[in-house]
This record gives sequence, structure tokens and C-alpha cells, in this order.
Amino acid sequence: MTETRTWLDRLWFSIGLGGRGPAAAAPLPLAQTLAQALLSRRGEASGAAIATELLTAWRALDGQGRLDFARFLSQGFRPDAAQLTAAFEAWRADPSPTTEERLARLAEPPRQELLRRMNLAPGATASLIDLRQSLFSQLKNEPALLPLESDLRHLLASWFNRGFLELRRIDWQTPAATLEKLIAYEAVHEIQGWDDLRRRLDADRRCFAFFHPALPGEPLIFVEVALVKGLAAAVQPLLDRAGTERTPKDADTAIFYSISNCQEGLRGISFGNFLIKQVVEELRAELPQLSRFATLSPVPGFRRWLERDAPEAVPQDDWRNDAAQAEAMRPRLLHHCARFLTQSQDGRGPADPVARFHLGNGARLERINWLANTAPRGLRESFGVMVNYQYDLAFIEANHEAFANDGTVARSRTVEALLTPPPEPDEARPGLAARLVRSVTG
Amino acid sequence: MTETRTWLDRLWFSIGLGGRGPAAAAPLPLAQTLAQALLSRRGEASGAAIATELLTAWRALDGQGRLDFARFLSQGFRPDAAQLTAAFEAWRADPSPTTEERLARLAEPPRQELLRRMNLAPGATASLIDLRQSLFSQLKNEPALLPLESDLRHLLASWFNRGFLELRRIDWQTPAATLEKLIAYEAVHEIQGWDDLRRRLDADRRCFAFFHPALPGEPLIFVEVALVKGLAAAVQPLLDRAGTERTPKDADTAIFYSISNCQEGLRGISFGNFLIKQVVEELRAELPQLSRFATLSPVPGFRRWLERDAPEAVPQDDWRNDAAQAEAMRPRLLHHCARFLTQSQDGRGPADPVARFHLGNGARLERINWLANTAPRGLRESFGVMVNYQYDLAFIEANHEAFANDGTVARSRTVEALLTPPPEPDEARPGLAARLVRSVTG
Amino acid sequence: MTETRTWLDRLWFSIGLGGRGPAAAAPLPLAQTLAQALLSRRGEASGAAIATELLTAWRALDGQGRLDFARFLSQGFRPDAAQLTAAFEAWRADPSPTTEERLARLAEPPRQELLRRMNLAPGATASLIDLRQSLFSQLKNEPALLPLESDLRHLLASWFNRGFLELRRIDWQTPAATLEKLIAYEAVHEIQGWDDLRRRLDADRRCFAFFHPALPGEPLIFVEVALVKGLAAAVQPLLDRAGTERTPKDADTAIFYSISNCQEGLRGISFGNFLIKQVVEELRAELPQLSRFATLSPVPGFRRWLERDAPEAVPQDDWRNDAAQAEAMRPRLLHHCARFLTQSQDGRGPADPVARFHLGNGARLERINWLANTAPRGLRESFGVMVNYQYDLAFIEANHEAFANDGTVARSRTVEALLTPPPEPDEARPGLAARLVRSVTG
Amino acid sequence: MTETRTWLDRLWFSIGLGGRGPAAAAPLPLAQTLAQALLSRRGEASGAAIATELLTAWRALDGQGRLDFARFLSQGFRPDAAQLTAAFEAWRADPSPTTEERLARLAEPPRQELLRRMNLAPGATASLIDLRQSLFSQLKNEPALLPLESDLRHLLASWFNRGFLELRRIDWQTPAATLEKLIAYEAVHEIQGWDDLRRRLDADRRCFAFFHPALPGEPLIFVEVALVKGLAAAVQPLLDRAGTERTPKDADTAIFYSISNCQEGLRGISFGNFLIKQVVEELRAELPQLSRFATLSPVPGFRRWLERDAPEAVPQDDWRNDAAQAEAMRPRLLHHCARFLTQSQDGRGPADPVARFHLGNGARLERINWLANTAPRGLRESFGVMVNYQYDLAFIEANHEAFANDGTVARSRTVEALLTPPPEPDEARPGLAARLVRSVTG
Repeated sequence: MTETRTWLDRLWFSIGLGGRGPAAAAPLPLAQTLAQALLSRRGEASGAAIATELLTAWRALDGQGRLDFARFLSQGFRPDAAQLTAAFEAWRADPSPTTEERLARLAEPPRQELLRRMNLAPGATASLIDLRQSLFSQLKNEPALLPLESDLRHLLASWFNRGFLELRRIDWQTPAATLEKLIAYEAVHEIQGWDDLRRRLDADRRCFAFFHPALPGEPLIFVEVALVKGLAAAVQPLLDRAGTERTPKDADTAIFYSISNCQEGLRGISFGNFLIKQVVEELRAELPQLSRFATLSPVPGFRRWLERDAPEAVPQDDWRNDAAQAEAMRPRLLHHCARFLTQSQDGRGPADPVARFHLGNGARLERINWLANTAPRGLRESFGVMVNYQYDLAFIEANHEAFANDGTVARSRTVEALLTPPPEPDEARPGLAARLVRSVTG
Repeated sequence: MTETRTWLDRLWFSIGLGGRGPAAAAPLPLAQTLAQALLSRRGEASGAAIATELLTAWRALDGQGRLDFARFLSQGFRPDAAQLTAAFEAWRADPSPTTEERLARLAEPPRQELLRRMNLAPGATASLIDLRQSLFSQLKNEPALLPLESDLRHLLASWFNRGFLELRRIDWQTPAATLEKLIAYEAVHEIQGWDDLRRRLDADRRCFAFFHPALPGEPLIFVEVALVKGLAAAVQPLLDRAGTERTPKDADTAIFYSISNCQEGLRGISFGNFLIKQVVEELRAELPQLSRFATLSPVPGFRRWLERDAPEAVPQDDWRNDAAQAEAMRPRLLHHCARFLTQSQDGRGPADPVARFHLGNGARLERINWLANTAPRGLRESFGVMVNYQYDLAFIEANHEAFANDGTVARSRTVEALLTPPPEPDEARPGLAARLVRSVTG
Repeated sequence: MTETRTWLDRLWFSIGLGGRGPAAAAPLPLAQTLAQALLSRRGEASGAAIATELLTAWRALDGQGRLDFARFLSQGFRPDAAQLTAAFEAWRADPSPTTEERLARLAEPPRQELLRRMNLAPGATASLIDLRQSLFSQLKNEPALLPLESDLRHLLASWFNRGFLELRRIDWQTPAATLEKLIAYEAVHEIQGWDDLRRRLDADRRCFAFFHPALPGEPLIFVEVALVKGLAAAVQPLLDRAGTERTPKDADTAIFYSISNCQEGLRGISFGNFLIKQVVEELRAELPQLSRFATLSPVPGFRRWLERDAPEAVPQDDWRNDAAQAEAMRPRLLHHCARFLTQSQDGRGPADPVARFHLGNGARLERINWLANTAPRGLRESFGVMVNYQYDLAFIEANHEAFANDGTVARSRTVEALLTPPPEPDEARPGLAARLVRSVTG
Repeated sequence: MTETRTWLDRLWFSIGLGGRGPAAAAPLPLAQTLAQALLSRRGEASGAAIATELLTAWRALDGQGRLDFARFLSQGFRPDAAQLTAAFEAWRADPSPTTEERLARLAEPPRQELLRRMNLAPGATASLIDLRQSLFSQLKNEPALLPLESDLRHLLASWFNRGFLELRRIDWQTPAATLEKLIAYEAVHEIQGWDDLRRRLDADRRCFAFFHPALPGEPLIFVEVALVKGLAAAVQPLLDRAGTERTPKDADTAIFYSISNCQEGLRGISFGNFLIKQVVEELRAELPQLSRFATLSPVPGFRRWLERDAPEAVPQDDWRNDAAQAEAMRPRLLHHCARFLTQSQDGRGPADPVARFHLGNGARLERINWLANTAPRGLRESFGVMVNYQYDLAFIEANHEAFANDGTVARSRTVEALLTPPPEPDEARPGLAARLVRSVTG
């Protein structure tokens, strides 16, 4: 240890700290000096040690300090303009493999190499993810931070390549330290403590997550699956903790009722597409009798859209209290929801983010369910409507391509039928409406 | 499975294979078509599936097929010249973060994204390493393959960042499947089968390797360590399988007597520096009484250099048979070896690759040992001379920096003394030579 | 599978079930028939299969059915009286190794072999533990069940020999399925859900449990330890979930504040002694600076004893509400508690079961703490008094032996001093009492 | 540690060693004193510590010392004759559950409790197995050691109950430390080093072993299986290391070609029966297409039996060199072998130990193979003949019972046909013999 200390002492001396060590330094200049040392020749010899000190210094910074350090990284470590210009000219004069490669190399900011060297320290990957996360709220006001964010995204996208992710089943044998993260990260249907979690990991449930070796025990994204008979039409029965547990052998359908990203700092690096498809494969291998794989998804943008697009169709606040009124509204709301979810905005599909995610993955809009989520949030966002997106491996590529081309939304006949406007409420006889509804959800 | 087949059938149809499937296709066009599909919109939806098919097709190619596929990758998937030029002009006109980022993005060849998508398939990383390895022998004759090699190196260097490597101790509890790889990969002192390996994993030995999660059970680099008393002066006693095993508690010195890279396709992506330093930390934690960490290394370039630089000093072929002659040569050969290892070529250190590796890592040239490796290869390459490079954490950065600056070689006084030319053999009294030698090895 | 079914069909036929299988049988006769088959020649060939069927049948029995099956096992499978008598006579005539061995063999009831064969089935050990547990409530009324209980105890004691137990640390990385068992089994200071559990597994806490390979994930006994400075005098600060976490490096004392047996069916097979001693060894190895290992234990029998032995000293129900009264009572109650815990009943030590456990293990009665447990149960059972038993490896054997000989209780001088009766309360000046107390707890 | 030393010092003092410690003691008296301490009250408090010292002392004993210690254990620690007699009289007077239990308890020698306490020490189980093994060679001359051997067998049989064994597949991912034990323990077809072992663990091979938690990494018994098409008729093709590897999917038959016990000290405690049956279940689950499970077994007792029973049929030493002679002998030898293997000795089955093992497990004698093992040992013991015993779960119980009743050997029609004596060689036309043989092996 003496020698290590000696070596660090030399470092402290070399950055003007004398024998007082890093505790004596203001953390920001310390971090800056260490960043420069890391990219220098010194970093070649002692990279892991310097990176470790740098990460320690960075973690000691407060919010303002981290912001200043991010500015420091963004403004410095840029490509050498003269060299880059020369490389470009050389390439334009003679666009050979060599000049092309040199141009690409010089266009890559040295910042990327610095970030790669920061990753030499133990636990650095998690800190780089945090660093990126800290930029998001700032970017709008301060576009000068974009290069740093862009470099981080580029590196993280490469490091978190699907080939390096590990799919793991989560169950009651999983360490509590990982399980408590599910409770924290669940973004769709909040987990109400450990008893609720346990129900979600019962024998007729499945939960899978992607992990990365650099973030041990830390899920990147997870999906919760219910094994049921028939396409689930409402979420409360799935979440009901008192529900009788069924054996997975009776199920014919896997319902993906919740997908949550866990790492805000990996935003924009998509895992959900891969996760769903691999989980479909896993479930098929384990339970060959499953014949249908679908989600039960919220429609978070429905009310906002309806208020703008068809304000006259927005029900009054107390509509749920009046059964007749609610019943009367059903056809109209389902019709508008079908419109909302199949309408392409500028050829890029519907405005709803959940819809775009699943349709972009190649799923089909299968069914729109009435009073499917009666929790306050569900009623507020979408009048309780939820949607099944169905994953049918035979068609996902065609669905995806059509959607990517011009926003075409693959849909079932049931949904197609909803696109015909229902008769005006005053004309409609209740019996007819009821029959119509049955045909939708039956 | 039916659906998957259906989906692939669609793919086969779309590339003109009809219902006959990939077996009917010539593998090269198949691989090419799949590569294009992978980088297209289709690859966004079904990336992992297409990548898996592509890797399968690639593995089915013979040497010529792989070469043609490499050419296909090298020549295509290049930056868009017009867009790149426009991005450059925009940046030159206004060198803002945004234009800078856009220029970097467009200068990166789409080939890199293609290679990242290939990595979506299970086991793809190993195949990409193989792909790169297959290029090496071809590069000299065919520089057009350079862009592919360069992209692969860039990606692999990022993916095999130190932060993603796992150091593991190798011992007799390690799976045989991994151990047999040590036997295959040992590049310095060949392992003579399982009994020899077992000796090298005894209680007074240590072996550590780096592993990467994408190559399970496959070492990237490993180091063999002997725990001894005093600085080891010869390698045969370390390798001797009949040697009495000592308990590690008696040792004061760790001798790194063999370091081998395992993955030819990762050539140029250096792990050795990190490995040695982390192993030093591991050994210190386990055995705090160790006070010295040094190598016992070959000098592979010595004879070649001597034949050119001081041919008169090269001994006759039978020198080993004549004890008096051998003894007489000792001072001169040690002197020349010291010259060879401290002489800087164009300010970049000695020509010997092993020396450059350890000196570049910040080690010190500690001692030159006479008759340290009496195996045929050792005698042939360096007249049996071996060298201790000592790793002293307090000085590695300074040593590294001096070496990187102008090739200055850190060395002990013992080595320094050898740089003084010895008296001519006929002048020398044997007793003096003997005393000199004692002072060198004592 | 056909063959297996055929084989079982043969079994069902052979016990009169025809082709209707076990579902058609009354479970009790089925279990009885299978038990007989298991001990017969048939059991030699197909032991594991028959045992599996037997366990399945037994698990299907209700309470009355299990009781009847236990009677069946108790009454049958007894030693052969004639052979046993003959073996005894042969031994008495010639007490040789051979006759001695034969006598022992014939005196062992065949029931033991039957129980060993039942253990051939997967998961059988847990069922045999359950079987034993089910007997406890019945034994008083029905001594005829004693032989079965005795055989089970004998077998389980041999199978759960210390040599087969595995000590494991329990922390937040432990699977939730195991952690929830801690919550269920904690018998001393109830765990108030997962947050409370998490606090008990913090960095300045330790928890260890014994496991047995036949009961995976199922703790047999566990101990909770707090790492603190000085001998803990009260339990609430240890349990306080809002308490600031300290680092274990500051601690000099390990307080064993809760020990819970988990398997009622292993009652009488003691693990606590081994657990405490091995945990002391583990903690020493991890934290060499720890210098004291002691419990903070309840005195569950104190009130009951006091009511009988010194009823005039029992405080009124509302004593806690009157600070002066509480203060006045302190010397007397501590004095009586010291008497209670050092008094030997018939030469077998004090009546308190916790005291007998620790003193029997060789611990020393170190300190008696006033208002150490202010939870309702603590106040009710022992007026809030708790006790430190100290484990000092140098003395445990001598302490144990003295205790085992005649119930002599090893105690500190502090406890010894309490044995002198305090002055009568009306004589005592408060100041004096307070000083006395300080000297006791200081 | 100070206290531990102090405690041990007290022990050393108490057995007359003063401050000189155990190194100063003669190991035998030390072991004897520790054994007595372990069974005494002292052993209750410090059992694990004393047991550890005792095992250390025992391991330091040489062969004579161990023998003396075994005598010490055998002669002492016997039941109390007076108490035992009283318990017997009480039982005879009143054969109640209580008296029966007390009689059984007093008839069990205290030696068993001592051995159970020895097992408190880490690693003790392996030493107790060694202790038992060391007795075997001595027992014939010294029956006084029988009680110790008997107690050890009784304890080990209970501890190594099937319920505590773990079946594990052995393959090339298994630690080398375990694999080298296979090489050492293989008793049927010697493993010729690591290359041979590797072949036996290839994709079309399986190897399974039982392990016990108290002997980590140490197989108790293992079986080697070849996955083939059709019933294997010769062993050399199975062992041939150059053999083309086939994929297990093509196989319809699993051939158990080698079963080896590993722990001589567990002799007489049978695992083979359980192993074969569980491996059949494992293979079925993995490879449902397998329809036949059979051995390819040696007939080690054949020549010895033939020399006694039909000496005129024993071929001359050079029979293998003369193809015509060998051919001529075939019918007769196969006939005699069929006789040998179906003949019941005193109603207990054939004399061949391998036959008794498999037939006793319920297998059927399926086929007798000519020139099936041409290795020297095979030719010497059985003229190259090997046998298939087939495990058919539908019949094993009936086969076992018939065999156990009166030695009836279940056999195929092919074997049955061999029991008819062939025509005398001089009468036989070669063509007929050849046809006969084809029908046997076809």
C-alpha cells in the first residue's frame, strides 16, 4: 500500500496538492486535472488508478459541480479542427479506404476515448449512466452539452448491445436487493410492497429482465407476464392479490401487462423490442401450449387527444357514477379510441407513445377493452380503456415495415369494425349498444 | 415454431429462394442479402433473427467465401460522400456542437452499425473476432480490407474495455474445458499436458485470466505466477514438475513467468498492462508478506540483434559444451544484452518486443540472468539469458512516462553496471569474472 | 413413461386397486400398504418409487389420517421379541463383540429402517420433520406414540449432525424466499415486515443461519447480531429502524440479540451452541478488532418466579407511569433478578430457559440491565429487565462443566454485587440508588 | 485467538501436557484422551473444538497407531452390561413402548455417539470413511474390530441415505479436480489419461455421479453411458478415441458400459441401484426418443467357473490366433456362459458378482456377446464375452422379486435359446454355427 500511496502522492503533488492529498483539493479542479491526466500519456500507464480517482472525485461533486464538470467535458476534448480539415481534404482528393478511415478517426471527438478510459474504474459504467441522466434536464436550455450527451449515448448504445445483455427470470428465489428494485422501478402499475410483488411472481406469473455484466443485480428493463385463459380484458383481475393462483399448465395466453425501463440514463437505447421477443421464445420453450402472446396496455394519450380532437365526446366528470350514462358512452369512446390509435400523424403512426412502441415492434392492435383499468390514473388518462397489442411472429416484420413506411397500423377486424361511427346516442337503443359492446369484447 | 418458419419463409422468398429455404442458396449471396436486410428497416424489427441467420450463413462459408464476404463488407457500407461533404461544409461554416456531432456521425461508416447489429445474434462476438483474425494475413496484399479491420478493431476495443473484463483465478477447480485452453494458448513455456498444467496450478503457484461475458469460459489473456523466495534467476526450476511444493506463506516474491494472449482476433487490444497490475493487487490482498513483483522474461530478439550489431561477440554453436568457453563468454554476453535492452531505437525503446511491453507498462529492468533458460528455444534466441522486469507501483508512472517520452529505460544499478564493457576475455582473470557474475546475480 | 405407469399399475393391482390407481384408494390404507411394501423385498428394488408414492399418500392425509398413520407406525415395525430375547441370552452367555453387535441390531426397531427408506423420496426429510412435529401435541395423552417419536428423533439427530450443517450469512442478497422465512420464524423480537428486516441486515448488522442440504433454502436456526461500541444495555436502540447506520469497523462488541429455532419438528436437537460458537469464529475472522461477544437476552421466567418467590416485591401494574416509584424499585428488582438467575434448582441451574441455554453453553452472566426492553412483552415477562450473557472462549468449557456438575452459574463481579440485598426502599436515599444503578450499568 | 489458545492450553494441561501443547504428546495417547474428552461432559460444551483436535491427532498417526486407536475404540465405549441387562429384564416383564425404547437405547454402544461427535469436526466424514477402510484388511485376523466396523457401517449407511445424495452430470465443464478422480477410480475399463476421458464425455456420451454434501467434489459412484443406435455388442468401439462423434439425437439406446464405486470405505453401502434408475429417468427427460436402457457388462467370473465346471470346454491359450478354432468354439462358450449366468447357486443367483448386482436390481439378462471385449483382461476373465443387462422399468420389481425369492434369472428368448446345448463341434457344419451366431448377436 505504501507504494500506491507514494504514487498517488506524486500525482497530488503534480497537480499542486502537495502532501495534503485529494481531500485538500476543491473537487471540481481535481476532477478536471484527473480527466486531463487520464487522456494523457500518464493515463496509458495508470489508467485504472486515475480513472478510479476521477470517479471518486466526480461522485463527491454536488449538482452544480457535476454540471460544471459536464460543461468542461463538453467544451474540451473536441476534434482538432486543423487535422480534421486536412483529413477531409485528403479524403476528398482521394477517397480511398485509408483516407476514409483517417477522416472517421479524426472526426470522432477525443472525448469518446476519455469516456472509455473513465470506464476503466470499477463501477464506472453506472456513473457514466448517471452522468448522462444528469444532462437530460439541462439540454434544452444548454445545447452546448449536446456533444457530451451524444458521445455518451453512442458509447452506451455500443456497450449495451443486445449481444451483451443477459435475460434472467425473476422470481421469489431472486435476491431481495434485486427485487426491491422492481418495486422502485415499476412504472405502469405500481407495486404495493412486498406482498403485491410476491403475487406478481406466483406460479401463474412470469417476470423477466435484462441485465448487463457491468451493472450486477441491476435490471435494465423488466416485463411482467400473466399466464391466463383467453385474452385478458381488464387489468384489475390480474393485479388482484387475493386472486386464486392457477397453474400455468391451464393457460393458453401470455399477457404482457407491464414493461418498465429501469435506467433513466439509458433513455433512447431500446431494449423493449428484444425483451418481448426473447421472452416469447422463453415462454414457448417452457410452455408449448401457449398460443397467444399479447399485451394489456394503457392508452396514456387518449384523453388529451380527445379533448383536442373531439371535445364534444369527452364525458362529464361524474360519468362513472351514472351507469346508464357510462353505458351510453361506450360505443362513442371505443370508436374514438380506435380512431386515435389507428390515425397516423405525419405518416409516423398514432401520437400515443405506448402504441408507437408496440406497433413499431411489429405488434398488431388486437382489441380495445372497455373499463379495463378502473384505477384513478386509468380513468383519468383514458376513461379506463386499455388495449391488447398482439405479437404474432409470422407478421411482425411485415407489420413493422408497413408502420415504418407510412405509419400504417396493423389491426384486427374487431378494431376495424370500431372505426365505423356508432349511431348517435339518442338514436341508439340501449339493447343495440349492449350487443355491439359484447361483440367487441367477446 | 410454425410462425417463425413462416417468417423466415417470407425472408427466403423475398431474396429469391422460394420455399426451398437457405440450404438452397449459395451461401455467399445469402450472407450478402442478409447483411443488407440487417442494416435495413427489416433489421429494426427482426434484428436478432436476421443476425442469427447471417452468422449461420457466414460460418458455413469456406476460406474463399469468407474472404469474398469480407471484401463485400469492406467495399460497401461506406459513408455517404455527398452527405459527409455537406456535413463538413456546415461544420467549417459554423463549428458548433451540433455540426461537429453531425460530422462525426456521418464520418462513421454504416459498416459499424452493421457490425453492431451482427452482434445481436447469440455467439456473434466470437465470430466477429474470428472475422477480424481472418483478415490479418490478407491485409498486406489487400489494403482495401483495412476499413473493415479498422471498424472491427474500433468496436472490439470498445466492447472489450477493461471495465467489462472479469479477472478470475484459474486453479484445479476450474472446468477442464477452460484448462485445456491454457494448454493450447500458452505461448512462452509450452505446457506439456495435464500433469505439467497441474504443477503450474499447485499451492505455490497462481494463475489469473481475464474473461469477457460474451466469451464464456474463454480466457482472453492469462498470467502464470510462481511464489518464491528471492528473485528467480532461472526458469527450469520453476517449471520442474518434480519440484517440491512449498507453501505460499514462505514466499516473499511473486514471479510472473509467463503471459499469453489467447485471442488472435483481439490483437492490438492490450490487456496485459491491466492484468499484471490487477494481479499484483490480488496477490497483495491474499498474501500481504509479498514484497516484490517481477517477471522472469525471455529476450527473444537478442541473438538477431547481436548478429547484426556485434557479430564478433556471437558464440560458436558448441559453446555450451565447453564450460570454460561458456564461462568466459558470460561477461561479454551480459554486457551486450544490457546494451540491447537499454538502447533506444529512434527514441522508442529497445527493439525487443517483450522489453517494450514491460517497460511500456512502467516496469524496471531489474536483472539479467545467465543460463536462465536452457531449453533449446531459450539458447537459440538469447543464449539462455532471461530478464527480470520489476513492477514497483510507486514508480510505474514515472518509468512509463520517461519511456514513452524518449525511450528511456528504467534500470537497476546492477544492470547499469553491466553497461560498462568488461575487460577483454584474454585480459580477464577468471576469478574477477566470477566475482563480477556473483555481484550480478547475488 | 408407459413403463413406469405399468409398473405402478402392477403395484395398484397388487394392493387391490385394479386399474383405478391410487386416486381410487382411501389414502390411509394406501399409505399403510405402501409402508409395508417399502420395508419388504419390493422396497429393495423400487425403494425410491415406493417411497415417493408413500410420501404423496401421506401428504394427502388430513390430521386424523396422519394421526392414524402415526399409530400404525408406532404399533407395528417393532423388534421381534423372540429373536431379541435369543440375542440377549446369547450375549449374556458370551458377551463377545459379535453377540453385542447382534443384540444392538435386533434391539433397533425395524421402524428405523422403514423411516430411512421413506427418506429415499425427494423432499422426504421435510415430511419426516413434519411427521415428528405432528406428534408433539399428542404425546402426553398417547404415550404409545413415543416409539415413533423416539425413532424419528434418533434418526434426525444423526442426519442433522453438525458435520452436515452449512453456516451461511444472510443478507440483502439472499433470496426473498429465504428471507421471508426469517420474518416468519423470528421468535424473540418480531420482525415488522420487510423494512424492519432490511434494517436488521444493514452494514452494521450480521445474520447467520444453519442450513441442511436436504432442506434447501430453509434455515434451521438463525442468529441476529448487532455490531456496536460497548456492551448493549437495551434492545430498542438496536431494533430502531430509523437509527443511523454505523460502519462495522467502529464496533468493538458483537451483540447476539436474537436466536430463533425454525423447525419445530427438530425440537430437542440442539444447534444453538454450535451456531453461536461458529459465528464468533466467523466474526473474528472478518472483524479482528472485535473484543467482546455477548448476548442481549430476555428473562422470560422472571415475573412468574417473582410472583411465587417474593410476591411483596412485585410492582403494581402502573409502576412505569410513576417515575419515582420505578426508580425506587430498581435496586430491589435487579437484586431479585440476580437471585433468580444464579439460583440453582436441584443443582440444575436457574429455572429460566434462556439462562439455562446460554449458561449450559458455557457463557457467563455478565450484566443485568434495567429498562432494557420496554416493549409490552418485555415489561410483562420481566419488568423490562434484559441480560447480557458473555461468551469468552477461554472459559466456556470450565463454565459449562461447573454448570453441568451442580448448576453453578458463572457471573461477573457486577452481578455478584447485586446479590447483596439493597437497603429497604424507605431507608434508601434516591441519590444513593441512582449511584448504585450507575455502577451496575456503567 | 488468545482465548482459544488459552482454552486449548487448559486442555493440554488437563491431559498432562503442560504448556508444551499437543506437539509434545505421543499422538496415540493424545487421540485416546481426546476421544474420552469428546464423549464426556466437556464434549458437550466444546465438541467441535475437541473433535477437530482429535481428527488432527488421528491423521498424524501412522498405520500401527491407527490400528491401535481402532482397537481402543473397539474395546471401549461398549454398552453398560448391568444397565443393559436391567433394561432387558424390564422390557421382558413389561414390553411397553417405553421399555422397548429404553432397551434399544442401552443396546446401542456409546461408541456410536462418540463417532457422531467426531463428525462435528470439519472434514470428519472423510476421515471416518478412511477409518472404516483401514479396518477391512484387518477384520479377518482380528474379529475384535468388528464392533467398530459395524458401528461405522451403520452410521455411514444412515448418513449416506439416498435422500442426501446429489446426482450430478459430469462433463467437460466439471472441475479438473473432480475429473481426475474419475481417472483414478474407473474400475472397469481403465481411463488412459485426459484425452481418453474427454472422449468419454463427448456429446454422444453421458456420465453421472452421486455426490454427498460432506465430501465436496468427491464422487461416490459414477456411471458412463454411450448413446448409440441398437444394443451395443462390443466395448472397443465405444472406447475408441478416434471414433466419429455422433449426435445424441440419432441414438435410440443408452448403454451403461461402466459403473465404478469410488469410496472403498463405503463398501457394502449400495448406491448403484439408485444411480442406474435415476440416470434412466434423467436420460428419458433429456432425450425422449431413447427406447432402451441396457448395460454392456463384463463377466469376470466366467473362466474361473468354466475351469471348474466344464474344464473340457476351456479353450487352449492360443485359441484367438486360430480363426477357425475360435469360430468353432463360439457356440459352446456362449452356451456355457448362458448356463453360468442363469444357474442359481443355493437359490441366490449366479456366482458372477456383476450379474448378481444387475439381476438383483431387477434387470434382465438380454444378450451374450461374442468377442465383445478383446482387451487382455476381457479375454483372460471371460474369453472376450460381454453381456447386456437390460433395465425395463415395467419389470424390474417382478424381476427383482423372482431373483430375490429363489435366484430366478429373468432372460430374453435369445439367452434362453443358448441354454440348449449346441451340436458337438465335429458334428457341426460351420455354416450352421455362423447362422446360430448371427441369430444371437443380430
